[in-house]
Amino acid sequence: MQPAVKLACSCQVIREALQKDINVMEKSSPVDLVTETDQRVEQLIISSIKEKFPTHSFIGEESVAAGAPSVLTDNPTWIIDPIDGTTNFVHRFPFVSVSVGFAIEFGIVYSCAEDKMYTARRGGGAFCNGEPINVSQQEGGASTTPVPSERTLADSFLPSLLYFSIPDISQSLVLTEMGFKKNPEHFKTMLRNINAILTIPVHGIRCPGSAAVNMCLVACGSADAYYHMGIHCWDMAGGAVIATEAGGVVMDVSGGPFDLMSRRLIVASSRKIAERISKEIKEFEVGRDDAGGQ
Amino acid sequence: MQPAVKLACSCQVIREALQKDINVMEKSSPVDLVTETDQRVEQLIISSIKEKFPTHSFIGEESVAAGAPSVLTDNPTWIIDPIDGTTNFVHRFPFVSVSVGFAIEFGIVYSCAEDKMYTARRGGGAFCNGEPINVSQQEGGASTTPVPSERTLADSFLPSLLYFSIPDISQSLVLTEMGFKKNPEHFKTMLRNINAILTIPVHGIRCPGSAAVNMCLVACGSADAYYHMGIHCWDMAGGAVIATEAGGVVMDVSGGPFDLMSRRLIVASSRKIAERISKEIKEFEVGRDDAGGQ
Repeated sequence: MQPAVKLACSCQVIREALQKDINVMEKSSPVDLVTETDQRVEQLIISSIKEKFPTHSFIGEESVAAGAPSVLTDNPTWIIDPIDGTTNFVHRFPFVSVSVGFAIEFGIVYSCAEDKMYTARRGGGAFCNGEPINVSQQEGGASTTPVPSERTLADSFLPSLLYFSIPDISQSLVLTEMGFKKNPEHFKTMLRNINAILTIPVHGIRCPGSAAVNMCLVACGSADAYYHMGIHCWDMAGGAVIATEAGGVVMDVSGGPFDLMSRRLIVASSRKIAERISKEIKEFEVGRDDAGGQ
Repeated sequence: MQPAVKLACSCQVIREALQKDINVMEKSSPVDLVTETDQRVEQLIISSIKEKFPTHSFIGEESVAAGAPSVLTDNPTWIIDPIDGTTNFVHRFPFVSVSVGFAIEFGIVYSCAEDKMYTARRGGGAFCNGEPINVSQQEGGASTTPVPSERTLADSFLPSLLYFSIPDISQSLVLTEMGFKKNPEHFKTMLRNINAILTIPVHGIRCPGSAAVNMCLVACGSADAYYHMGIHCWDMAGGAVIATEAGGVVMDVSGGPFDLMSRRLIVASSRKIAERISKEIKEFEVGRDDAGGQ
Protein backbone atom coordinates (compact mmCIF):
# COMPACT_ATOMS: atom_id res chain seq x y z
CA MET A 1 0.00 0.00 0.00
CA GLN A 2 1.88 3.01 -1.34
CA PRO A 3 0.45 5.67 1.00
CA ALA A 4 1.66 3.71 4.01
CA VAL A 5 5.22 4.52 2.98
CA LYS A 6 4.41 8.25 2.84
CA LEU A 7 2.66 7.97 6.19
CA ALA A 8 5.79 6.48 7.69
CA CYS A 9 7.70 9.61 6.53
CA SER A 10 5.05 11.83 8.12
CA CYS A 11 5.34 9.90 11.32
CA GLN A 12 9.07 10.46 11.33
CA VAL A 13 8.32 14.20 11.19
CA ILE A 14 5.96 13.84 14.16
CA ARG A 15 8.35 11.72 16.19
CA GLU A 16 11.15 14.24 15.60
CA ALA A 17 8.83 17.08 16.57
CA LEU A 18 7.92 15.30 19.81
CA GLN A 19 11.59 15.59 20.80
CA LYS A 20 11.69 19.34 20.21
CA ASP A 21 10.01 22.31 21.78
CA ILE A 22 6.67 22.72 20.14
CA ASN A 23 5.72 26.08 18.78
CA VAL A 24 2.12 26.09 19.81
CA MET A 25 -0.24 28.45 18.11
CA GLU A 26 -3.68 28.84 19.54
CA LYS A 27 -6.70 28.95 17.29
CA SER A 28 -9.95 29.95 18.94
CA SER A 29 -9.29 28.69 22.48
CA PRO A 30 -6.63 26.89 24.50
CA VAL A 31 -8.45 23.64 23.78
CA ASP A 32 -8.22 24.17 20.04
CA LEU A 33 -4.54 23.96 19.31
CA VAL A 34 -2.59 23.82 16.15
CA THR A 35 1.11 23.30 15.74
CA GLU A 36 3.49 23.89 12.89
CA THR A 37 3.82 20.13 12.70
CA ASP A 38 0.11 19.66 11.87
CA GLN A 39 0.48 21.94 8.86
CA ARG A 40 3.80 20.45 7.76
CA VAL A 41 2.55 16.86 7.95
CA GLU A 42 -0.66 17.63 6.05
CA GLN A 43 1.24 19.34 3.23
CA LEU A 44 3.71 16.44 3.08
CA ILE A 45 0.90 13.89 2.73
CA ILE A 46 -1.14 15.91 0.22
CA SER A 47 1.80 16.78 -2.03
CA SER A 48 3.07 13.21 -2.15
CA ILE A 49 -0.39 11.85 -3.03
CA LYS A 50 -0.92 14.58 -5.66
CA GLU A 51 2.25 13.52 -7.47
CA LYS A 52 0.68 10.12 -8.07
CA PHE A 53 -3.01 11.13 -8.38
CA PRO A 54 -3.17 14.73 -9.67
CA THR A 55 -6.96 14.72 -10.24
CA HIS A 56 -7.98 13.46 -6.79
CA SER A 57 -9.67 15.67 -4.17
CA PHE A 58 -8.58 16.29 -0.59
CA ILE A 59 -10.22 17.21 2.70
CA GLY A 60 -7.58 17.96 5.31
CA GLU A 61 -8.10 19.38 8.79
CA GLU A 62 -5.58 22.19 8.37
CA SER A 63 -6.65 23.03 4.79
CA VAL A 64 -10.26 23.35 5.97
CA ALA A 65 -9.11 25.55 8.88
CA ALA A 66 -7.42 27.75 6.26
CA GLY A 67 -10.67 28.09 4.27
CA ALA A 68 -10.68 25.10 1.86
CA PRO A 69 -14.09 23.50 1.26
CA SER A 70 -15.12 20.45 3.24
CA VAL A 71 -17.53 18.74 0.88
CA LEU A 72 -17.54 15.13 -0.17
CA THR A 73 -18.17 14.80 -3.94
CA ASP A 74 -18.15 11.84 -6.34
CA ASN A 75 -14.52 12.58 -7.16
CA PRO A 76 -12.02 10.21 -5.45
CA THR A 77 -11.31 11.95 -2.16
CA TRP A 78 -8.56 11.63 0.45
CA ILE A 79 -9.50 12.70 3.97
CA ILE A 80 -6.55 13.55 6.17
CA ASP A 81 -5.95 14.33 9.83
CA PRO A 82 -2.22 15.12 10.07
CA ILE A 83 -2.19 14.89 13.88
CA ASP A 84 -5.22 13.38 15.52
CA GLY A 85 -4.89 14.24 19.20
CA THR A 86 -3.16 17.63 18.85
CA THR A 87 -3.66 18.40 22.54
CA ASN A 88 -2.06 15.04 23.40
CA PHE A 89 0.77 15.89 20.99
CA VAL A 90 1.40 19.26 22.64
CA HIS A 91 1.59 17.55 26.02
CA ARG A 92 3.45 14.48 24.69
CA PHE A 93 0.58 12.36 26.01
CA PRO A 94 1.09 8.96 24.40
CA PHE A 95 -1.94 8.72 22.08
CA VAL A 96 -1.25 10.68 18.91
CA SER A 97 -1.97 9.49 15.37
CA VAL A 98 -1.95 10.32 11.69
CA SER A 99 -5.19 9.34 9.97
CA VAL A 100 -5.76 8.96 6.23
CA GLY A 101 -8.95 7.68 4.65
CA PHE A 102 -9.71 7.22 0.97
CA ALA A 103 -13.48 7.57 1.10
CA ILE A 104 -14.65 5.01 1.81
CA GLU A 105 -12.37 2.44 0.21
CA PHE A 106 -9.48 2.18 2.66
CA GLY A 107 -8.13 3.61 5.87
CA ILE A 108 -4.73 4.05 7.49
CA VAL A 109 -4.12 5.17 11.07
CA TYR A 110 -0.62 5.38 12.50
CA SER A 111 -0.46 5.58 16.31
CA CYS A 112 2.86 7.38 16.68
CA ALA A 113 3.86 6.80 20.32
CA GLU A 114 2.78 3.17 20.19
CA ASP A 115 4.40 2.71 16.75
CA LYS A 116 1.32 0.87 15.48
CA MET A 117 0.25 1.11 11.83
CA TYR A 118 -3.41 0.15 11.38
CA THR A 119 -4.52 -0.51 7.79
CA ALA A 120 -7.68 -1.77 6.10
CA ARG A 121 -9.14 -2.01 2.62
CA ARG A 122 -12.84 -2.58 2.04
CA GLY A 123 -13.43 -6.33 1.84
CA GLY A 124 -9.82 -7.14 2.67
CA GLY A 125 -9.78 -7.22 6.47
CA ALA A 126 -8.01 -4.99 8.98
CA PHE A 127 -4.42 -5.18 10.19
CA CYS A 128 -2.09 -3.76 12.83
CA ASN A 129 1.57 -3.79 11.78
CA GLY A 130 0.60 -6.38 9.19
CA GLU A 131 -1.16 -8.75 11.63
CA PRO A 132 -4.92 -9.31 11.24
CA ILE A 133 -7.01 -7.66 13.97
CA ASN A 134 -10.55 -8.28 15.18
CA VAL A 135 -12.99 -6.58 17.49
CA SER A 136 -13.59 -8.10 20.94
CA GLN A 137 -15.91 -11.01 21.60
CA GLN A 138 -18.35 -8.73 23.46
CA GLU A 139 -21.64 -9.16 21.67
CA GLY A 140 -24.05 -7.56 24.12
CA GLY A 141 -26.32 -10.52 24.88
CA ALA A 142 -29.86 -9.87 26.10
CA SER A 143 -30.00 -8.99 29.77
CA THR A 144 -31.89 -11.43 31.99
CA THR A 145 -32.65 -8.83 34.64
CA PRO A 146 -34.02 -5.31 34.49
CA VAL A 147 -31.14 -2.98 33.75
CA PRO A 148 -30.67 -0.19 36.30
CA SER A 149 -30.00 3.09 34.55
CA GLU A 150 -31.02 6.69 34.43
CA ARG A 151 -34.68 5.99 33.66
CA THR A 152 -37.41 8.51 33.24
CA LEU A 153 -40.49 8.35 35.42
CA ALA A 154 -42.46 7.05 32.44
CA ASP A 155 -40.02 4.16 32.10
CA SER A 156 -40.73 3.02 35.62
CA PHE A 157 -44.34 2.29 34.65
CA LEU A 158 -43.31 0.01 31.81
CA PRO A 159 -43.50 -3.69 32.63
CA SER A 160 -40.05 -4.92 33.60
CA LEU A 161 -40.36 -7.67 30.98
CA LEU A 162 -39.53 -5.00 28.41
CA TYR A 163 -36.05 -4.79 29.81
CA PHE A 164 -35.41 -8.45 28.95
CA SER A 165 -34.65 -7.42 25.39
CA ILE A 166 -32.11 -4.74 26.33
CA PRO A 167 -28.60 -5.90 25.44
CA ASP A 168 -26.34 -6.42 28.46
CA ILE A 169 -23.21 -4.36 27.92
CA SER A 170 -22.07 -4.41 31.56
CA GLN A 171 -18.87 -6.26 30.58
CA SER A 172 -17.85 -3.52 28.15
CA LEU A 173 -15.08 -0.95 28.23
CA VAL A 174 -16.40 2.22 26.57
CA LEU A 175 -14.41 5.10 25.09
CA THR A 176 -15.49 8.69 24.66
CA GLU A 177 -13.97 12.16 24.90
CA MET A 178 -14.80 15.03 27.23
CA GLY A 179 -14.17 18.42 25.70
CA PHE A 180 -15.05 21.86 26.98
CA LYS A 181 -18.28 22.85 25.23
CA LYS A 182 -19.04 26.54 24.97
CA ASN A 183 -22.75 25.78 24.83
CA PRO A 184 -23.80 25.02 28.44
CA GLU A 185 -26.60 22.73 27.26
CA HIS A 186 -24.16 20.66 25.19
CA PHE A 187 -21.81 20.48 28.15
CA LYS A 188 -24.60 19.32 30.43
CA THR A 189 -25.70 16.68 27.93
CA MET A 190 -22.13 15.42 27.48
CA LEU A 191 -21.83 14.83 31.24
CA ARG A 192 -25.36 13.39 31.40
CA ASN A 193 -24.36 10.85 28.73
CA ILE A 194 -21.26 9.79 30.68
CA ASN A 195 -23.48 9.40 33.72
CA ALA A 196 -25.94 7.27 31.70
CA ILE A 197 -23.22 4.96 30.36
CA LEU A 198 -21.42 4.56 33.70
CA THR A 199 -24.63 3.73 35.54
CA ILE A 200 -25.60 0.92 33.13
CA PRO A 201 -22.99 -0.03 34.57
CA VAL A 202 -20.06 -0.87 32.29
CA HIS A 203 -16.55 -2.01 33.21
CA GLY A 204 -15.35 1.55 32.74
CA ILE A 205 -15.04 4.61 30.55
CA ARG A 206 -11.67 5.66 29.15
CA CYS A 207 -10.80 8.97 27.44
CA PRO A 208 -7.49 8.57 25.60
CA GLY A 209 -7.77 11.80 23.58
CA SER A 210 -7.28 10.64 19.97
CA ALA A 211 -10.45 9.82 18.04
CA ALA A 212 -8.64 7.81 15.34
CA VAL A 213 -6.79 5.76 17.96
CA ASN A 214 -10.08 5.20 19.82
CA MET A 215 -11.59 3.65 16.68
CA CYS A 216 -8.53 1.41 16.31
CA LEU A 217 -8.71 0.40 19.99
CA VAL A 218 -12.23 -0.89 19.28
CA ALA A 219 -11.01 -2.49 16.04
CA CYS A 220 -8.31 -4.49 17.84
CA GLY A 221 -10.52 -5.47 20.79
CA SER A 222 -8.94 -3.28 23.51
CA ALA A 223 -12.29 -1.53 23.98
CA ASP A 224 -15.84 -2.56 23.08
CA ALA A 225 -17.39 0.75 22.06
CA TYR A 226 -16.62 4.38 21.32
CA TYR A 227 -19.14 7.19 20.93
CA HIS A 228 -18.55 10.85 20.12
CA MET A 229 -20.51 13.94 19.06
CA GLY A 230 -18.45 16.83 17.70
CA ILE A 231 -15.88 14.67 15.89
CA HIS A 232 -14.85 15.57 12.28
CA CYS A 233 -14.69 13.61 9.02
CA TRP A 234 -10.87 13.62 9.11
CA ASP A 235 -10.97 11.99 12.55
CA MET A 236 -13.26 9.20 11.29
CA ALA A 237 -12.37 8.51 7.65
CA GLY A 238 -9.44 6.16 8.31
CA GLY A 239 -10.76 4.50 11.46
CA ALA A 240 -14.24 3.80 10.12
CA VAL A 241 -12.92 1.44 7.41
CA ILE A 242 -10.50 -0.19 9.89
CA ALA A 243 -13.21 -0.78 12.53
CA THR A 244 -15.67 -2.15 9.94
CA GLU A 245 -13.09 -4.47 8.41
CA ALA A 246 -12.14 -5.73 11.88
CA GLY A 247 -15.74 -6.95 12.27
CA GLY A 248 -17.06 -3.90 14.10
CA VAL A 249 -20.17 -1.82 13.56
CA VAL A 250 -20.08 1.89 12.77
CA MET A 251 -23.34 3.81 13.04
CA ASP A 252 -24.78 7.23 13.77
CA VAL A 253 -25.50 8.10 17.42
CA SER A 254 -29.22 8.02 16.53
CA GLY A 255 -28.90 4.33 15.63
CA GLY A 256 -29.23 5.16 11.90
CA PRO A 257 -26.62 4.67 9.17
CA PHE A 258 -23.15 6.19 9.61
CA ASP A 259 -22.67 9.50 7.81
CA LEU A 260 -19.02 10.57 7.38
CA MET A 261 -19.92 14.28 7.34
CA SER A 262 -22.33 14.21 10.29
CA ARG A 263 -19.74 14.78 13.06
CA ARG A 264 -21.30 11.92 15.10
CA LEU A 265 -20.55 8.25 15.48
CA ILE A 266 -20.74 5.09 17.50
CA VAL A 267 -18.22 2.31 16.86
CA ALA A 268 -18.75 -1.00 18.62
CA SER A 269 -17.76 -4.64 18.52
CA SER A 270 -21.36 -5.63 17.72
CA ARG A 271 -24.62 -4.09 16.56
CA LYS A 272 -26.30 -4.87 19.89
CA ILE A 273 -23.68 -2.92 21.84
CA ALA A 274 -23.85 0.02 19.43
CA GLU A 275 -27.65 0.07 19.67
CA ARG A 276 -27.55 -0.01 23.48
CA ILE A 277 -25.12 2.93 23.53
CA SER A 278 -27.42 4.74 21.08
CA LYS A 279 -30.41 4.15 23.39
CA GLU A 280 -28.56 5.53 26.42
CA ILE A 281 -27.13 8.74 24.99
CA LYS A 282 -28.96 11.96 24.33
CA GLU A 283 -28.07 13.87 21.17
CA PHE A 284 -26.98 17.48 20.93
CA GLU A 285 -26.62 19.58 17.79
CA VAL A 286 -23.07 19.70 16.43
CA GLY A 287 -23.62 20.84 12.83
CA ARG A 288 -22.20 19.07 9.77
CA ASP A 289 -18.71 19.12 8.28
CA ASP A 290 -20.15 19.95 4.84
CA ALA A 291 -22.34 22.80 6.07
CA GLY A 292 -19.88 24.96 7.98
CA GLY A 293 -20.84 23.22 11.26
CA GLN A 294 -19.54 24.67 14.52
CA MET B 1 18.06 -1.83 42.18
CA GLN B 2 17.45 -5.49 42.96
CA PRO B 3 13.62 -5.42 43.01
CA ALA B 4 13.60 -4.05 39.47
CA VAL B 5 14.91 -7.41 38.29
CA LYS B 6 12.10 -9.23 40.06
CA LEU B 7 9.61 -6.76 38.63
CA ALA B 8 10.86 -7.54 35.15
CA CYS B 9 10.05 -11.23 35.80
CA SER B 10 6.57 -10.25 37.00
CA CYS B 11 6.06 -8.22 33.88
CA GLN B 12 6.99 -11.21 31.77
CA VAL B 13 4.16 -13.09 33.53
CA ILE B 14 1.77 -10.24 32.72
CA ARG B 15 2.87 -9.92 29.11
CA GLU B 16 2.43 -13.68 28.62
CA ALA B 17 -1.00 -13.52 30.24
CA LEU B 18 -2.04 -10.73 27.89
CA GLN B 19 -1.53 -13.19 25.02
CA LYS B 20 -3.81 -15.80 26.55
CA ASP B 21 -7.48 -15.99 27.38
CA ILE B 22 -7.95 -14.42 30.76
CA ASN B 23 -9.87 -16.31 33.37
CA VAL B 24 -11.75 -13.45 34.87
CA MET B 25 -13.23 -13.82 38.30
CA GLU B 26 -15.58 -11.16 39.50
CA LYS B 27 -15.38 -9.86 43.03
CA SER B 28 -18.25 -7.63 44.16
CA SER B 29 -19.27 -6.18 40.76
CA PRO B 30 -18.27 -6.25 37.09
CA VAL B 31 -16.18 -3.14 37.75
CA ASP B 32 -14.20 -4.86 40.47
CA LEU B 33 -12.29 -7.54 38.65
CA VAL B 34 -9.55 -9.85 39.71
CA THR B 35 -7.62 -12.25 37.55
CA GLU B 36 -5.47 -15.22 38.33
CA THR B 37 -2.56 -13.15 37.09
CA ASP B 38 -3.01 -10.49 39.82
CA GLN B 39 -2.69 -13.15 42.49
CA ARG B 40 0.22 -14.93 40.77
CA VAL B 41 2.21 -11.72 40.27
CA GLU B 42 1.69 -10.54 43.86
CA GLN B 43 2.87 -13.87 45.26
CA LEU B 44 5.88 -13.83 42.93
CA ILE B 45 6.93 -10.35 44.11
CA ILE B 46 6.32 -11.00 47.82
CA SER B 47 8.12 -14.35 47.91
CA SER B 48 11.15 -13.01 46.09
CA ILE B 49 11.45 -9.99 48.43
CA LYS B 50 10.91 -12.19 51.50
CA GLU B 51 13.88 -14.34 50.52
CA LYS B 52 16.11 -11.30 50.85
CA PHE B 53 14.29 -9.42 53.67
CA PRO B 54 12.47 -11.99 55.83
CA THR B 55 11.48 -9.49 58.56
CA HIS B 56 9.90 -6.87 56.29
CA SER B 57 6.13 -6.24 56.15
CA PHE B 58 3.88 -6.23 53.08
CA ILE B 59 0.65 -4.59 52.00
CA GLY B 60 -0.53 -6.10 48.73
CA GLU B 61 -3.85 -5.51 46.98
CA GLU B 62 -4.69 -9.19 46.63
CA SER B 63 -3.49 -10.12 50.16
CA VAL B 64 -5.72 -7.40 51.60
CA ALA B 65 -8.64 -8.65 49.50
CA ALA B 66 -8.00 -12.08 51.05
CA GLY B 67 -8.18 -10.63 54.58
CA ALA B 68 -4.59 -9.53 55.38
CA PRO B 69 -4.29 -6.30 57.42
CA SER B 70 -3.72 -3.01 55.63
CA VAL B 71 -1.92 -1.00 58.28
CA LEU B 72 1.30 0.96 57.91
CA THR B 73 3.60 0.38 60.90
CA ASP B 74 7.17 1.48 61.70
CA ASN B 75 8.45 -1.82 60.28
CA PRO B 76 9.95 -1.54 56.79
CA THR B 77 6.95 -2.08 54.50
CA TRP B 78 6.56 -2.97 50.83
CA ILE B 79 3.31 -1.86 49.21
CA ILE B 80 2.42 -3.75 46.07
CA ASP B 81 -0.15 -3.50 43.31
CA PRO B 82 0.46 -6.55 41.10
CA ILE B 83 -1.69 -5.21 38.26
CA ASP B 84 -2.71 -1.59 38.44
CA GLY B 85 -5.43 -1.21 35.84
CA THR B 86 -7.00 -4.66 36.14
CA THR B 87 -9.98 -3.61 34.03
CA ASN B 88 -7.56 -2.36 31.35
CA PHE B 89 -5.69 -5.68 31.63
CA VAL B 90 -8.86 -7.71 31.13
CA HIS B 91 -9.65 -5.67 28.01
CA ARG B 92 -6.00 -5.49 26.85
CA PHE B 93 -6.32 -1.69 26.98
CA PRO B 94 -2.74 -0.43 26.76
CA PHE B 95 -2.23 1.13 30.22
CA VAL B 96 -1.44 -1.61 32.71
CA SER B 97 1.30 -1.48 35.32
CA VAL B 98 2.97 -3.20 38.25
CA SER B 99 3.56 -0.85 41.18
CA VAL B 100 5.92 -1.41 44.09
CA GLY B 101 6.65 1.14 46.80
CA PHE B 102 8.96 0.78 49.77
CA ALA B 103 7.29 3.25 52.11
CA ILE B 104 8.27 5.93 51.50
CA GLU B 105 11.88 5.42 50.44
CA PHE B 106 11.58 4.35 46.80
CA GLY B 107 9.08 3.53 44.09
CA ILE B 108 8.98 1.38 40.98
CA VAL B 109 6.21 1.39 38.37
CA TYR B 110 6.44 -0.75 35.26
CA SER B 111 4.02 0.23 32.47
CA CYS B 112 3.71 -3.14 30.74
CA ALA B 113 2.26 -2.32 27.31
CA GLU B 114 4.51 0.71 26.92
CA ASP B 115 7.52 -1.25 28.26
CA LYS B 116 8.51 1.67 30.48
CA MET B 117 10.19 1.12 33.85
CA TYR B 118 9.83 4.16 36.12
CA THR B 119 12.10 4.20 39.19
CA ALA B 120 12.89 6.70 41.95
CA ARG B 121 14.70 6.75 45.29
CA ARG B 122 14.13 9.55 47.80
CA GLY B 123 16.68 12.26 47.10
CA GLY B 124 18.03 10.46 44.04
CA GLY B 125 15.78 11.72 41.24
CA ALA B 126 13.30 9.88 39.04
CA PHE B 127 13.97 7.85 35.90
CA CYS B 128 12.20 6.16 33.00
CA ASN B 129 14.15 3.26 31.53
CA GLY B 130 17.22 4.75 33.18
CA GLU B 131 16.78 8.27 31.73
CA PRO B 132 16.08 11.15 34.14
CA ILE B 133 12.51 12.47 33.98
CA ASN B 134 10.96 15.75 35.06
CA VAL B 135 7.47 17.14 35.43
CA SER B 136 6.23 19.63 32.81
CA GLN B 137 7.07 23.31 32.81
CA GLN B 138 3.45 24.17 33.69
CA GLU B 139 3.69 26.20 36.87
CA GLY B 140 0.20 27.67 37.09
CA GLY B 141 1.09 31.36 36.98
CA ALA B 142 -1.39 33.88 38.35
CA SER B 143 -4.23 34.55 35.95
CA THR B 144 -4.36 38.05 34.51
CA THR B 145 -8.05 37.83 33.71
CA PRO B 146 -11.04 36.64 35.68
CA VAL B 147 -11.22 32.87 35.36
CA PRO B 148 -14.54 31.59 34.02
CA SER B 149 -15.59 28.57 36.00
CA GLU B 150 -18.54 27.01 37.81
CA ARG B 151 -18.98 29.95 40.17
CA THR B 152 -21.64 30.37 42.79
CA LEU B 153 -23.89 33.39 42.71
CA ALA B 154 -22.01 34.77 45.73
CA ASP B 155 -18.75 34.63 43.78
CA SER B 156 -20.14 36.85 41.08
CA PHE B 157 -20.43 39.67 43.61
CA LEU B 158 -16.77 39.47 44.56
CA PRO B 159 -14.56 42.08 42.91
CA SER B 160 -12.92 40.54 39.87
CA LEU B 161 -9.52 41.64 41.19
CA LEU B 162 -9.75 38.70 43.57
CA TYR B 163 -9.38 36.39 40.60
CA PHE B 164 -5.95 37.82 39.81
CA SER B 165 -4.46 35.59 42.50
CA ILE B 166 -6.04 32.39 41.19
CA PRO B 167 -3.42 30.28 39.38
CA ASP B 168 -4.05 29.97 35.65
CA ILE B 169 -4.11 26.28 34.79
CA SER B 170 -5.89 26.67 31.44
CA GLN B 171 -2.85 25.26 29.61
CA SER B 172 -2.93 22.04 31.63
CA LEU B 173 -3.82 18.49 30.71
CA VAL B 174 -5.52 16.89 33.72
CA LEU B 175 -5.94 13.19 34.51
CA THR B 176 -8.61 11.55 36.63
CA GLU B 177 -10.67 8.36 36.64
CA MET B 178 -14.40 7.88 36.37
CA GLY B 179 -15.65 4.80 38.18
CA PHE B 180 -19.16 3.67 38.87
CA LYS B 181 -19.95 4.77 42.43
CA LYS B 182 -22.69 2.90 44.25
CA ASN B 183 -23.38 5.95 46.39
CA PRO B 184 -25.41 8.31 44.17
CA GLU B 185 -24.07 11.38 46.01
CA HIS B 186 -20.46 10.30 45.35
CA PHE B 187 -21.31 9.72 41.73
CA LYS B 188 -22.88 13.14 41.41
CA THR B 189 -19.87 14.78 43.06
CA MET B 190 -17.44 12.91 40.79
CA LEU B 191 -19.22 14.28 37.70
CA ARG B 192 -19.54 17.72 39.29
CA ASN B 193 -15.76 17.76 39.79
CA ILE B 194 -15.11 16.86 36.14
CA ASN B 195 -17.47 19.66 35.17
CA ALA B 196 -15.61 22.10 37.46
CA ILE B 197 -12.19 21.20 36.04
CA LEU B 198 -13.32 21.24 32.38
CA THR B 199 -14.99 24.62 32.75
CA ILE B 200 -11.88 26.31 34.18
CA PRO B 201 -11.15 25.53 31.22
CA VAL B 202 -8.14 23.25 30.82
CA HIS B 203 -6.64 21.77 27.66
CA GLY B 204 -8.43 18.53 28.41
CA ILE B 205 -9.16 15.68 30.77
CA ARG B 206 -7.85 12.19 30.08
CA CYS B 207 -8.83 8.95 31.83
CA PRO B 208 -6.25 6.28 31.01
CA GLY B 209 -7.40 3.79 33.67
CA SER B 210 -4.19 3.01 35.62
CA ALA B 211 -3.55 5.17 38.70
CA ALA B 212 0.14 4.29 38.90
CA VAL B 213 0.65 5.11 35.22
CA ASN B 214 -1.25 8.39 35.71
CA MET B 215 1.22 9.43 38.41
CA CYS B 216 4.12 8.56 36.10
CA LEU B 217 2.53 10.51 33.21
CA VAL B 218 2.62 13.59 35.48
CA ALA B 219 6.17 12.69 36.57
CA CYS B 220 7.44 12.63 32.98
CA GLY B 221 5.55 15.75 31.87
CA SER B 222 2.89 14.12 29.64
CA ALA B 223 0.18 15.54 31.90
CA ASP B 224 0.19 18.40 34.39
CA ALA B 225 -2.06 17.08 37.15
CA TYR B 226 -3.91 14.02 38.36
CA TYR B 227 -6.56 13.88 41.07
CA HIS B 228 -8.44 10.91 42.47
CA MET B 229 -10.66 10.00 45.42
CA GLY B 230 -11.15 6.28 46.06
CA ILE B 231 -7.62 5.24 45.11
CA HIS B 232 -5.68 2.79 47.37
CA CYS B 233 -2.24 2.88 49.02
CA TRP B 234 -0.95 0.20 46.61
CA ASP B 235 -1.94 2.40 43.67
CA MET B 236 -0.01 5.37 45.08
CA ALA B 237 3.02 4.01 46.97
CA GLY B 238 5.32 3.64 43.96
CA GLY B 239 4.11 6.62 41.96
CA ALA B 240 4.18 9.11 44.83
CA VAL B 241 7.97 8.78 45.23
CA ILE B 242 8.47 8.90 41.44
CA ALA B 243 6.32 12.04 41.00
CA THR B 244 7.99 13.82 43.93
CA GLU B 245 11.48 12.96 42.73
CA ALA B 246 10.60 14.20 39.24
CA GLY B 247 9.94 17.62 40.76
CA GLY B 248 6.20 17.23 41.22
CA VAL B 249 3.96 17.95 44.17
CA VAL B 250 1.84 15.29 45.87
CA MET B 251 -0.84 16.47 48.28
CA ASP B 252 -4.21 15.57 49.73
CA VAL B 253 -7.31 16.68 47.81
CA SER B 254 -8.03 19.09 50.69
CA GLY B 255 -4.75 20.90 49.98
CA GLY B 256 -3.18 19.41 53.13
CA PRO B 257 -0.25 16.98 53.36
CA PHE B 258 -0.36 13.73 51.40
CA ASP B 259 -1.42 10.71 53.45
CA LEU B 260 -0.63 7.32 51.88
CA MET B 261 -3.54 5.59 53.65
CA SER B 262 -6.15 8.31 52.97
CA ARG B 263 -7.34 7.00 49.56
CA ARG B 264 -7.12 10.54 48.13
CA LEU B 265 -4.49 12.48 46.23
CA ILE B 266 -3.55 15.26 43.87
CA VAL B 267 -0.30 15.02 41.90
CA ALA B 268 0.79 18.05 39.89
CA SER B 269 3.77 19.63 38.19
CA SER B 270 3.67 22.54 40.67
CA ARG B 271 2.14 23.50 44.01
CA LYS B 272 0.07 26.23 42.36
CA ILE B 273 -1.57 23.78 39.97
CA ALA B 274 -2.23 21.27 42.76
CA GLU B 275 -3.79 24.00 44.92
CA ARG B 276 -6.00 25.20 42.07
CA ILE B 277 -7.26 21.65 41.50
CA SER B 278 -7.85 21.34 45.25
CA LYS B 279 -9.91 24.55 45.21
CA GLU B 280 -12.09 23.35 42.33
CA ILE B 281 -12.97 19.87 43.50
CA LYS B 282 -15.49 18.92 46.13
CA GLU B 283 -14.60 16.06 48.47
CA PHE B 284 -16.61 12.94 49.16
CA GLU B 285 -16.04 10.36 51.87
CA VAL B 286 -14.04 7.33 50.73
CA GLY B 287 -12.85 5.85 54.03
CA ARG B 288 -9.23 4.97 54.81
CA ASP B 289 -7.12 2.00 53.76
CA ASP B 290 -6.11 1.38 57.40
CA ALA B 291 -9.67 1.53 58.75
CA GLY B 292 -11.50 -0.94 56.55
CA GLY B 293 -12.65 1.89 54.27
CA GLN B 294 -15.16 1.13 51.55
